[in-house]
Amino acid sequence: MKQSQFPIKTFREYPKNELALNAKLLMRAGFIDKVGAGIYSYLPLGLRVIRNIEQIVREEMNAIKGRELLLPALHPKSYWQKTGRWDTFDALYRINAREDREYALGPTHEEIIVPLAKNLIQSYKDLPLYLYQIQTKFRDEPRAKAGLLRGREFIMKDLYSFHTDANDMDTYFEIVAAAYGKIFNRCGLPAVRTKASGGTFSKFSDEYQVLTSAGEDTIFLCQQCDTAWNKEIIGIKRTCPSCKKELKEEHATEVGNIFKLGTGYSKPFDLQYQAQDGSKRDVIMGCYGIGVSRLMGVAAEVHHDEKGIIWPDEIAPFAVHLIEIKDSKVKSQNYNVKFKMSGENVYQTLLEDNIKVLYDDREDKTAGEKLTEADLIGIPLRIVVSEKTLKERKVEVKKRSETDVKLMTIKEFLQNF
Amino acid sequence: MKQSQFPIKTFREYPKNELALNAKLLMRAGFIDKVGAGIYSYLPLGLRVIRNIEQIVREEMNAIKGRELLLPALHPKSYWQKTGRWDTFDALYRINAREDREYALGPTHEEIIVPLAKNLIQSYKDLPLYLYQIQTKFRDEPRAKAGLLRGREFIMKDLYSFHTDANDMDTYFEIVAAAYGKIFNRCGLPAVRTKASGGTFSKFSDEYQVLTSAGEDTIFLCQQCDTAWNKEIIGIKRTCPSCKKELKEEHATEVGNIFKLGTGYSKPFDLQYQAQDGSKRDVIMGCYGIGVSRLMGVAAEVHHDEKGIIWPDEIAPFAVHLIEIKDSKVKSQNYNVKFKMSGENVYQTLLEDNIKVLYDDREDKTAGEKLTEADLIGIPLRIVVSEKTLKERKVEVKKRSETDVKLMTIKEFLQNF
Repeated sequence: MKQSQFPIKTFREYPKNELALNAKLLMRAGFIDKVGAGIYSYLPLGLRVIRNIEQIVREEMNAIKGRELLLPALHPKSYWQKTGRWDTFDALYRINAREDREYALGPTHEEIIVPLAKNLIQSYKDLPLYLYQIQTKFRDEPRAKAGLLRGREFIMKDLYSFHTDANDMDTYFEIVAAAYGKIFNRCGLPAVRTKASGGTFSKFSDEYQVLTSAGEDTIFLCQQCDTAWNKEIIGIKRTCPSCKKELKEEHATEVGNIFKLGTGYSKPFDLQYQAQDGSKRDVIMGCYGIGVSRLMGVAAEVHHDEKGIIWPDEIAPFAVHLIEIKDSKVKSQNYNVKFKMSGENVYQTLLEDNIKVLYDDREDKTAGEKLTEADLIGIPLRIVVSEKTLKERKVEVKKRSETDVKLMTIKEFLQNF
Repeated sequence: MKQSQFPIKTFREYPKNELALNAKLLMRAGFIDKVGAGIYSYLPLGLRVIRNIEQIVREEMNAIKGRELLLPALHPKSYWQKTGRWDTFDALYRINAREDREYALGPTHEEIIVPLAKNLIQSYKDLPLYLYQIQTKFRDEPRAKAGLLRGREFIMKDLYSFHTDANDMDTYFEIVAAAYGKIFNRCGLPAVRTKASGGTFSKFSDEYQVLTSAGEDTIFLCQQCDTAWNKEIIGIKRTCPSCKKELKEEHATEVGNIFKLGTGYSKPFDLQYQAQDGSKRDVIMGCYGIGVSRLMGVAAEVHHDEKGIIWPDEIAPFAVHLIEIKDSKVKSQNYNVKFKMSGENVYQTLLEDNIKVLYDDREDKTAGEKLTEADLIGIPLRIVVSEKTLKERKVEVKKRSETDVKLMTIKEFLQNF
């Protein structure tokens, strides 16, 4: 993509209308725009990151036989009355519409997927069943001051699993846990599986926590037995409940959670199946969430330096930022023509190799402006072509995360890419 | 995809809780589920169709330099007050939330994209700019009885263009019109460009109408000069305003519309640019919509027969429905083993050729059940493998839209695919 044809607007200063570090970094570098507290637009650059995260999540969900669907955000009140959550779900946006119809704006989708599953599940032969979606959720958060880490509108992956019995669910629960590990690693955000409170239907849940100095959660890590606990369930305990070693306190941000729901939602909706012996039994459920837009915020918060963001490879908006620098002292027509072809040639060579490249071909920016902006945006690899490099038929390659600059031919670059 | 691992539930009868033909067809064949009036879930089979339509739209929007972003659905009231539409937009869902914060639930996005564009546009050098999204919209429709043709929640592509002057907008307007023609053709739904009323900011707009016997709109077609008018602007006129020939009345469904907005939205938000002469001028805008989920409904409504849906090739959930039929009289272990391998082999061969195939490998369904269900679902090509065909090392190929059945080798099939 040529930068002259791709709208990116970066800013010299951090935005004044934003407190959260992740949103400050992302707004300043042109990834998101703020619409209101906890409400953001994803600009073309930012949407590319979101799509990359979604793609990772989708691949890992499909690999564990999750089937993707898409549920609505408008939930007629009756569904939420069935579970009693119309009155008890604190962060529910409630809409009073034409002819006094009332809706909840979906903050989660048990109330919709369970009635849907009744159509798909009749007998034990229809089980297990794994359904997920990647979708926009809405929560009327009392405090929405953490940027993408606590949105009033946010993108989430929610997977729901349906089983004949608790053993089958327990087995799948660990399969999902393994997939979650892969997802967070691929996003460049290794997460700690952490025991936390379980909500209404089970004593515990498992959270995936990324260590972040400004994280909302406090967790206790045992270095010895590789377990972790959310402060909410062990209080100020200083020794590991498993091995009694000393615990280390860390701040962290939750990026995913997995719950055993049992029959908590199947019962209110009468979601049953016919077992092999002909009897009717309640379907056992699990649910599994990942905050897709939150991951983008966490990535910015964890991976940046004083110059800007440093995207992990697999979620970066582009793999390579190709920057053309013209020597302002050389003005001859001939040189310009020759030079322009060369920057363009490198661009075409990268495209032919299917490398996702952002090519800063802009004529009205100085070298300094281009390099400063590239650091803000944070694409993992930077290639500079200039008079100096082209004379030697080489390019200048630098990793955003390192200070070393290497001069090499484009062929050498491609061999090492 | 193996059908034994892909949840599809079809029904013998049309659903009783649905009146619209498109939704009846799509619900019966397992593409969508009804949550409430004008509110549907897209099941795994249906989501594949939606994604195909989205992909066509995306490709054609990118080809005319549209850049994709994603705007929020929650719009703080203040944005809608600026244009006066908080009070005048009839179908607006209004939310009263915590601490008396009020939001509109986005039915369209001028109120959000124009303030955003103020960040991206400073000078004439930043223009033209073309931004689009594919996103869920919400409208509190008084009557939502037309299935996917009039949803309270629906998926839409909305493109907004920003220009220095009206001439530049007029030029791009025709470029978008040409792209729209391609999109609807690729979806198998050729649409008639129809003059219609223009709303608040221009006298006319152009609608794209697909002829459908149950369509909500009435349009008049001139066979002579290839123009069309919506009844709303010419009343019961029977002759062509351009060439005076007689007009033909047709029922139709709108699938897209394109509007010249002029400065109607730039003015309330002070969206200006600095011209080459240094003066400040209002940005000129156009907006361009396509009903993505509506297109899915129109496709079902237009392309079906008494047996079910007949998907146009490019939006079909799969290209090939491979059906394995076992002869119930042949029960020997040997035969089953040999047979099973053969169905599986055809499946693997198709996959290796990157053909999107749904393989009905289910053991507990009869030939009749499988073939009836295949007709309901409506994948364009059906391949049957059975004892009869495999003996000759051939498969039976049938187009969903035709009655002819052809026996051929899988190699012959691949050569003609």
